[in-house]
Amino acid sequence: MADGTRLRILLVGASGTIGRAVAAELGARHDIVPAGRTSGEVRIDIADPASIVAALRQVGPIDAVACASGSVNFRPLSAIEPASVTDSLYALGLANKLMGQVNLALAARETLRDGGSITLISGVLTHTPIVAGSSATLVNAAIEGFVRAAAIELPRGLRINAVSPTVLSESMAAYGPFFRGFEPVRAARVGLAYSRSIEGAQTGQVYKVP
Amino acid sequence: MADGTRLRILLVGASGTIGRAVAAELGARHDIVPAGRTSGEVRIDIADPASIVAALRQVGPIDAVACASGSVNFRPLSAIEPASVTDSLYALGLANKLMGQVNLALAARETLRDGGSITLISGVLTHTPIVAGSSATLVNAAIEGFVRAAAIELPRGLRINAVSPTVLSESMAAYGPFFRGFEPVRAARVGLAYSRSIEGAQTGQVYKVP
Repeated sequence: MADGTRLRILLVGASGTIGRAVAAELGARHDIVPAGRTSGEVRIDIADPASIVAALRQVGPIDAVACASGSVNFRPLSAIEPASVTDSLYALGLANKLMGQVNLALAARETLRDGGSITLISGVLTHTPIVAGSSATLVNAAIEGFVRAAAIELPRGLRINAVSPTVLSESMAAYGPFFRGFEPVRAARVGLAYSRSIEGAQTGQVYKVP
Repeated sequence: MADGTRLRILLVGASGTIGRAVAAELGARHDIVPAGRTSGEVRIDIADPASIVAALRQVGPIDAVACASGSVNFRPLSAIEPASVTDSLYALGLANKLMGQVNLALAARETLRDGGSITLISGVLTHTPIVAGSSATLVNAAIEGFVRAAAIELPRGLRINAVSPTVLSESMAAYGPFFRGFEPVRAARVGLAYSRSIEGAQTGQVYKVP
């Protein structure tokens, strides 16, 4: 899609720090359809598969789906006990950031035009664990695994990648104590990684923004 | 634990191809407590958190927990639709191979002696996807993420690693069509990787058996 074509991009999590950066990077040369749980042209709750399917039917034909949203719990391992998939402290991450994005990708197959792209979000914790971050590391690693696997099976030239940002400068006030010693990046740099995924031609990649 | 101490090792999945190889490698110099869903001294269903907790209380103090068991579905991506964590075709892998092993590790904290180890199983598909293997890749990647994260938070010198084998020579009759072009390994080599994890001193590692 490096030929100057104007793309129609569904941006999930458009109102967040990363979502706004993605819109700032891509909005001038493409058509962004902002989506979110409580705001945006399209309402979507990625934790609810029916909401995802309905949102994608509502939005109609698109060239790209980009997700800049996903929740996990942060909890010390010492506070986590054995529990089922739905009762566990890992349940939020499994249902929201992991299966929410997996389901978004699966549903997007119906709506994406030939050669369209799916961009999910993981994060630096995949390979750099922090205390209280075991859910984030587990979920991010699973997302990157899904991207590698889905890339070889998607039909019609559809592509899928993940963007893996480190902690954002804009989030250090809130998350700084979890990320001591990490070098934060501005969200605008994360927006560039979404551009590489959406406007590039690779698939099955993890674009790190370290 | 390289000092010749005789270790008491709970081996989950002891009756399987890998479990038997682990017992063959370690059984002469350590005490293996075989465990399984339908056989073994200790009965354990890793998909059931209550079963895990009960099994570990039954077994009493141990020096190592090793898991050589975990189920996932193999299904073409084209046959997988958006669905909840419990209804999805990914549900088996999430509840069994992933959260089953996570819960085994969490429960083992109570039973393991100081400096004891936890060894989980992932697999070659983490980084080498195959058609119909998206659940395995997602789940294996998540297990390896959990291992990296848990390693920095476990108390009392407890260690945790994963063993990641490629397809087994012993399994090629059943799984060969999924693994065309893969060079299989004998289960005995996978047993050596469990030995490195249990009798070594590292933590947060993934021991590949390629």
